[in-house]
Amino acid sequence: MTVSEELGITTKKEEDPAEWYREVVIKSGLADYSSVGGCIVFKPRSYSIWEKVRKEIDRRFHDIGIENAYFPLFIPEKLLEKEAEHFEGFTPEVAWVTRAGSSDLDERLAIRPTSEAIMYDSYKDWVRSWRDLPLKINQWNNVVRWEFKHATPFLRTREFLWQEGHCAYATDDGVLEDKERVLDAYQEVCEDYLAIPCVRGRKTEKEKFSGAVDTYSLEHLLPDGKAIQGPTYHNDGTNFAKDFDITYTDEDGEEKYVRQSTFGFSTRQIGTMIMMHSDDRGLVVPPKVAPTRSVIVPIYHSKDERKAVMEVAEKVHGSLERCKMDDRENKTPGRKFNEWEVKGVPIRIEIGPSEAEEDQVTIVRRDTGEKKMVSVENVEETVEEELNNMQKSLFKRATELLEEGTQEVRDYDDLVSIVEENGGFVKAPWCGKKICEEIVKDDTSAKITNIPFMYDEPDGEKCIRCGDKAKHWVNFAKSY
Amino acid sequence: MTVSEELGITTKKEEDPAEWYREVVIKSGLADYSSVGGCIVFKPRSYSIWEKVRKEIDRRFHDIGIENAYFPLFIPEKLLEKEAEHFEGFTPEVAWVTRAGSSDLDERLAIRPTSEAIMYDSYKDWVRSWRDLPLKINQWNNVVRWEFKHATPFLRTREFLWQEGHCAYATDDGVLEDKERVLDAYQEVCEDYLAIPCVRGRKTEKEKFSGAVDTYSLEHLLPDGKAIQGPTYHNDGTNFAKDFDITYTDEDGEEKYVRQSTFGFSTRQIGTMIMMHSDDRGLVVPPKVAPTRSVIVPIYHSKDERKAVMEVAEKVHGSLERCKMDDRENKTPGRKFNEWEVKGVPIRIEIGPSEAEEDQVTIVRRDTGEKKMVSVENVEETVEEELNNMQKSLFKRATELLEEGTQEVRDYDDLVSIVEENGGFVKAPWCGKKICEEIVKDDTSAKITNIPFMYDEPDGEKCIRCGDKAKHWVNFAKSY
Repeated sequence: MTVSEELGITTKKEEDPAEWYREVVIKSGLADYSSVGGCIVFKPRSYSIWEKVRKEIDRRFHDIGIENAYFPLFIPEKLLEKEAEHFEGFTPEVAWVTRAGSSDLDERLAIRPTSEAIMYDSYKDWVRSWRDLPLKINQWNNVVRWEFKHATPFLRTREFLWQEGHCAYATDDGVLEDKERVLDAYQEVCEDYLAIPCVRGRKTEKEKFSGAVDTYSLEHLLPDGKAIQGPTYHNDGTNFAKDFDITYTDEDGEEKYVRQSTFGFSTRQIGTMIMMHSDDRGLVVPPKVAPTRSVIVPIYHSKDERKAVMEVAEKVHGSLERCKMDDRENKTPGRKFNEWEVKGVPIRIEIGPSEAEEDQVTIVRRDTGEKKMVSVENVEETVEEELNNMQKSLFKRATELLEEGTQEVRDYDDLVSIVEENGGFVKAPWCGKKICEEIVKDDTSAKITNIPFMYDEPDGEKCIRCGDKAKHWVNFAKSY
Repeated sequence: MTVSEELGITTKKEEDPAEWYREVVIKSGLADYSSVGGCIVFKPRSYSIWEKVRKEIDRRFHDIGIENAYFPLFIPEKLLEKEAEHFEGFTPEVAWVTRAGSSDLDERLAIRPTSEAIMYDSYKDWVRSWRDLPLKINQWNNVVRWEFKHATPFLRTREFLWQEGHCAYATDDGVLEDKERVLDAYQEVCEDYLAIPCVRGRKTEKEKFSGAVDTYSLEHLLPDGKAIQGPTYHNDGTNFAKDFDITYTDEDGEEKYVRQSTFGFSTRQIGTMIMMHSDDRGLVVPPKVAPTRSVIVPIYHSKDERKAVMEVAEKVHGSLERCKMDDRENKTPGRKFNEWEVKGVPIRIEIGPSEAEEDQVTIVRRDTGEKKMVSVENVEETVEEELNNMQKSLFKRATELLEEGTQEVRDYDDLVSIVEENGGFVKAPWCGKKICEEIVKDDTSAKITNIPFMYDEPDGEKCIRCGDKAKHWVNFAKSY
């Protein structure tokens, strides 16, 4: 059994989530560590998930009028200094190019941790009049933040992939209208593709992006009771416009600063997806983004059986999309079952001699382990149906987790004990003061993930910390 | 006329191709310079061309079984040293990260000029047995070569975008079979999409990639009589396998080195496309990759006329794909014509009051200037037809240029004078010796672009330089 143990996941998700996660990512073949500390290799199985996400986001951005472009990887130091306030947060994390060939550079160059500086330096030349607005640009690229020596694939790596949208408008209205459309796009991709439920809301002053007037986020609750931040949208107001002198002449000939937004969706969401759905047997991937949707494992013990089984297997294989035929001779069926479970293929199709004789196959679902006998002529329809069911069921389970993991409290001791014992989101009334937020963090290490839009105004409620009139119901949680 | 002069291209292609190119790229809105020396911004109009190229290459690679992945941007110096011979050529061009935050790095990191080192460091762990082969991986990424201070957009920039394919096989057969398939893919995209004819062949020993056993290339001839290298495919043999210790156990249990290939297609092809087709009035883009395929310019002088014209214009706009409506009130029709010519929109649709009355429009082709009156009900069909015609016609013109620009010579003085006076490809018999190649280069600055596959063996011919028995017909040309 050594081989099987090597192949399978040896850590339980509940017992050691970090080690379990590492095992799932590596053994499923999604990613690999590299010889560059803190950086990983996105293997084809994860990169193809990213390509599907990219396609869905691109389609939605296209409808919003956002166009893709590409700006330089490098940012001259003097440009970064223009956005000192915003950039301060990134300073300890910047990788610097100081040499080229065998010469020192006159001015060192930052590798983009984010592209505000290099993009807005162009925007100031591109925008002249109200007719040049709105300017809606997105780029898909790699960014570098030198924070973590030990990579956690997808979740914490020094280099990661993302899209960063940067739009400029004549007025705040543009920023706020597109806010809804961009967050809708993000939420649809999270929910309908990655099967990750979202809590949409506004970040507090303390937690917002330093360059922004307001930050909006999608927050997720993981099975271990911790929250994780998803994609964000920032209303930058005129903050960057002032730093980079991006002005336009309005219809009355008056010169004004543009209003800006920035928003991003990163490969971190793949990590969230893995943590959300996977189990002790390995990876579970929502079918819509699965690189392989189904795998056929033929089972036989003789040449004659092989002939009969393979005939049915080939027929089934030809009728299915993104379906893999595992006809390797050097692995047992049981071994193959394990391997495809670890790799998270949503549907396994077993075909043995007795099944072949009756023109039937057995369909096994990765998430529930449910088995179903189906006649060959119904395989295509049933597989589609089961893939749909699985997609819905993963989202349903994650939604229940979110609902059950959210507890409304009004008492500070309850807040403290829930955060410490159960985790999850603690919904509590809050006065809006930073000091209360900070005290909760000191006491529990939980922060306000965001101020959810779905919560009503806290009519007559008192701040859970200080007892003053509450302004908002908010979610407290320990976060990744 | 100052404004119009500002808008239009002021340099003639024949008189100053470099300045003309710069004007076309910037004024057409394809790209912009940036505040990082040698780096450009790919604006949406050029990035969308790249996205179309990417989609077509991806589709073809998928059929060859090549999968996309993503490897780190950084390469530790010690890994580069493993491929000393191959890497030597890149050493003067490498950008080095030496600091992160406020600390010096223990080991400096190269920004990938190409990814052999970082990828093969993983391959050595991924490949164990013949069952792991072939391993066919591609990545789309940004690479950095610190060569040119002054960027020529797309053609010579310090950072550019490309795909780099890196495959490993058990035997040379795999490398050579996929060579044809990959070069077919490249040639189809060049010819059918970018309308760039290709001369496919093998590079000489002198001109091949230093890490390769053999390099194959697609070469193009530009209207200025200079050649430019297109995408390449390298048969690396066991060169990298030995440097990086990538071995597999074959079916008989014997340990062997893998055989490898590398191949790439870069954003430089966009530059070649621009130089090939564009003219003194601005950009000309093959319709299949054009961001905007047609533009409607309504023409009117009164409110009543406007109403009638716009009604027809809206109807036409609704029926066409990637069609832009230019209903700006602050520009004259003539000014709009100029602008869209500079920007290279393949078809202009003019609708004036008399045309509107008769339910007709005027269609004008960007490449030829040909005008055609069409009834509204036939617009969709005619536009499709004209776009097809234009796509074919650009390719035909470029093919004629290649044919007329290729001259067969047997006399050394002819070679020298043609290279110096006319340019183009000089087809000449060559003995295969490096010294003759070098002497031609010294005498004329022309090199052997490649040994075209389409040329027959030079039966009984003598080397144009030394008079020894010729081994190949080759193309000499001055090159970019």
